[in-house]
Amino acid sequence: MTVSSHITYAVPMGRWEPNARERLVRAALDLFTEQGYDITTVNGIAERAGLTKTTFFRHFPDKREVFFGGQETHNRLMAEAIAASPGSATPLQAVAAALDALTATFTDDRREFAARLLTVIADNSELQERAAFKRTCLAGAMTDALRKRGVPDPTASLAAELGIRAFDDAFAHWADPTNQQTLTDLARHALHELRAATITLG
Amino acid sequence: MTVSSHITYAVPMGRWEPNARERLVRAALDLFTEQGYDITTVNGIAERAGLTKTTFFRHFPDKREVFFGGQETHNRLMAEAIAASPGSATPLQAVAAALDALTATFTDDRREFAARLLTVIADNSELQERAAFKRTCLAGAMTDALRKRGVPDPTASLAAELGIRAFDDAFAHWADPTNQQTLTDLARHALHELRAATITLG
Repeated sequence: MTVSSHITYAVPMGRWEPNARERLVRAALDLFTEQGYDITTVNGIAERAGLTKTTFFRHFPDKREVFFGGQETHNRLMAEAIAASPGSATPLQAVAAALDALTATFTDDRREFAARLLTVIADNSELQERAAFKRTCLAGAMTDALRKRGVPDPTASLAAELGIRAFDDAFAHWADPTNQQTLTDLARHALHELRAATITLG
Repeated sequence: MTVSSHITYAVPMGRWEPNARERLVRAALDLFTEQGYDITTVNGIAERAGLTKTTFFRHFPDKREVFFGGQETHNRLMAEAIAASPGSATPLQAVAAALDALTATFTDDRREFAARLLTVIADNSELQERAAFKRTCLAGAMTDALRKRGVPDPTASLAAELGIRAFDDAFAHWADPTNQQTLTDLARHALHELRAATITLG
């Protein structure tokens, strides 16, 4: 293990560790499911993935971050899609474009993973908290991108919030193994439903 | 300190520690402001408040929780106000009643405290994360209360989200020392603005 750790530290990332990040994420999900989040250690995750602790820490600061490594990428994807929307797009159309960009990265082979991930998160307040923070950050990134298009507040933050909520709803449905729709279609549908719900608020 | 700790443990809470909770909160805010969140310890907070570490842990599990001790009370206040709204109230009218109930607990003598609290939270990602989680829990409590009134999803969760957002907007304005309005009036106004913004989503 020590030798391997030394080697992986000295060579370019990825050369000796194909899919290291993905392997760590899957190992963490396995262990959190099998034995619970609290007693699972970084050492245990690395070992299950056939990697070293050093490799783990090259990818994640701690075990809680394992499922949230994509946050910056997701923020960027959504913000860029909003910026790239035609000038004529309404706030919600720009948000729909952001959802399209984000959901396109969730290929159908990750559906089973999604279901297990939701179960693990629902069981642990630390992970729920982290997930809530990720939502806040994603909403913030979209709000900023909408403001840059000249969308005033509170319309900007409201449109962003609807986008995040649509994603969450869609993700929960997507994780259901009986569901056959793509995450993109589910998110579009959820955003449409939320838009419709705004006229029932009273 | 040991003797005092022993005494406070043996006698009914409050007898020897008038306003212990409030003193701990204020001491924490002072220390977080003066020296930063990261290096402030539970010991330091207790000492500044003239109390013991044992007393601290009777009120809060750790330093991060000091500003979020009211969460359960806030959840309950909002849920009860929604449940108590007349049957004819729209989802947003029920949420407005929840905001009235919550904001009534924020008396004007806490305004200066609010401003400093927002500054400390804005400076620290751990506290931002905790605040995001509190928002999620408050929104969840309101959503559940609305569902019990027969409000369907996603209207229930959308109305709850508007309520939380209105509170946040109002709180930020309230913390501004140049503002003279009550938190209740600010929250009502913010909710009204958010409702109006729903027709500008496109």
